[in-house]
Amino acid sequence: MSTGKKILITNDDGVKSKGISALIEMMRPYGELTVVAPFEAQSGMSAALTIGKPLRLTELRNEEGLKVFACSGTPADCVKMAMNQLFLNEMPDLLVSGINHGSNASIASLYSGTLGAASEGTVYGIPSIGFSLCTHNPSADFSTAVHFGRKILEQFLKEPVKPNIYLNVNIPAIEIDEVKGIKFSHQGKGQWIKEFEARTDPYGFNYYWMTGEFYNLEPDEVGSDYNAVEEGYVSIVPHKIDTTDYQELKRLESIWKL
Amino acid sequence: MSTGKKILITNDDGVKSKGISALIEMMRPYGELTVVAPFEAQSGMSAALTIGKPLRLTELRNEEGLKVFACSGTPADCVKMAMNQLFLNEMPDLLVSGINHGSNASIASLYSGTLGAASEGTVYGIPSIGFSLCTHNPSADFSTAVHFGRKILEQFLKEPVKPNIYLNVNIPAIEIDEVKGIKFSHQGKGQWIKEFEARTDPYGFNYYWMTGEFYNLEPDEVGSDYNAVEEGYVSIVPHKIDTTDYQELKRLESIWKL
Repeated sequence: MSTGKKILITNDDGVKSKGISALIEMMRPYGELTVVAPFEAQSGMSAALTIGKPLRLTELRNEEGLKVFACSGTPADCVKMAMNQLFLNEMPDLLVSGINHGSNASIASLYSGTLGAASEGTVYGIPSIGFSLCTHNPSADFSTAVHFGRKILEQFLKEPVKPNIYLNVNIPAIEIDEVKGIKFSHQGKGQWIKEFEARTDPYGFNYYWMTGEFYNLEPDEVGSDYNAVEEGYVSIVPHKIDTTDYQELKRLESIWKL
Repeated sequence: MSTGKKILITNDDGVKSKGISALIEMMRPYGELTVVAPFEAQSGMSAALTIGKPLRLTELRNEEGLKVFACSGTPADCVKMAMNQLFLNEMPDLLVSGINHGSNASIASLYSGTLGAASEGTVYGIPSIGFSLCTHNPSADFSTAVHFGRKILEQFLKEPVKPNIYLNVNIPAIEIDEVKGIKFSHQGKGQWIKEFEARTDPYGFNYYWMTGEFYNLEPDEVGSDYNAVEEGYVSIVPHKIDTTDYQELKRLESIWKL
């Protein structure tokens, strides 16, 4: 069943996470897997790169069809390290990132390390997808994500996404037969509120834990990724790496006096 | 001359950098400044947030029209901290980030902490701009950036940018009278090559410094921000926080079988 593809796998929850094990299981039938994932959790790292301190790359497994490396940096570092140190004279056919343990719908996409890696793959011209299971429950079951991940992958391999675009797939944390379907969506509008919990250390100084509640700014918007998942659909958003607003560019150009 | 505005200032080179001192000087005439910037350099941090370890916020200066705080996190953390701990019942009228010591044109915008902060301001609905001086020369002169920064700010205050969009301003590192003008541009296409320098530690293990050369993928493209700066123009790109590709969404929706 192997398509013989060269597949680069990464994530932001770290090389030991449940989500990357599920992703490896999901991707095994499709080709040769090279996993380069962070040593430790790198959630919320967006497309961050490590500048000013050196990186390490450690081989953890090397078996038929599966190599696993841990990298000391961010998800985007992992992709750069894979491309510069491992894929020397060839390109991966595909990059898959995840399966993230938590939603990357709405503006979570701005902060997501899972998608930072998919964006980085796209910069190299690799067809790239990020998968996320929308729950933080530590005992989450990834089988719904694997099931729909494969369905989406089959389409992706038949009809790829245009250059400079990657896919953000969010899967609701429900049983396979409870899922209502798969929907193309757009990045929903949202905000976090109550973002920090302030505490006082034993020496009398304040410190702040990032926490926060997501606040959906368009609960009635048809087509928002956040709403799709809330309603029990798997959401797919195509994101682009060129974030220029061309319409606003033209508008400002015509009215600003420079 | 003060417009009495409440202005939030941040950056990614850290609270002690030359660029933020230049930005404070540039912004002083426009209102009350609240600076919340990283303790240390946070270049390449994109929109990353600090999750899993707590943040600190320390007041460094408090004088008429200027408060300065250092935050232990990323540029986006600084914005969140300012909004949650300092601007409690009011919104800043403006967020300015920078002046970055180095270009944020082309795909540097994906990794830029300067722009990560501007993006974060935009999420809160604050009109936001990131400024960058296109040189890494440690003895760089920021006066050209301050001069054109003010010109752009005057227009920005008269005719603001639409919601969910922030500006990325890149200034060439040349004398004021050598600048050919100010141009609206789009995010240029580029890549980094030769991205790591591998070394061996005293114990025989490899480690990798991120270095890299920028490779311009569209040297002849009229309207690219990178080319504008190369030609001696100040470049302004409007970036949006909704990175959905709506055209690709429609295309995939019509051809994928899900």
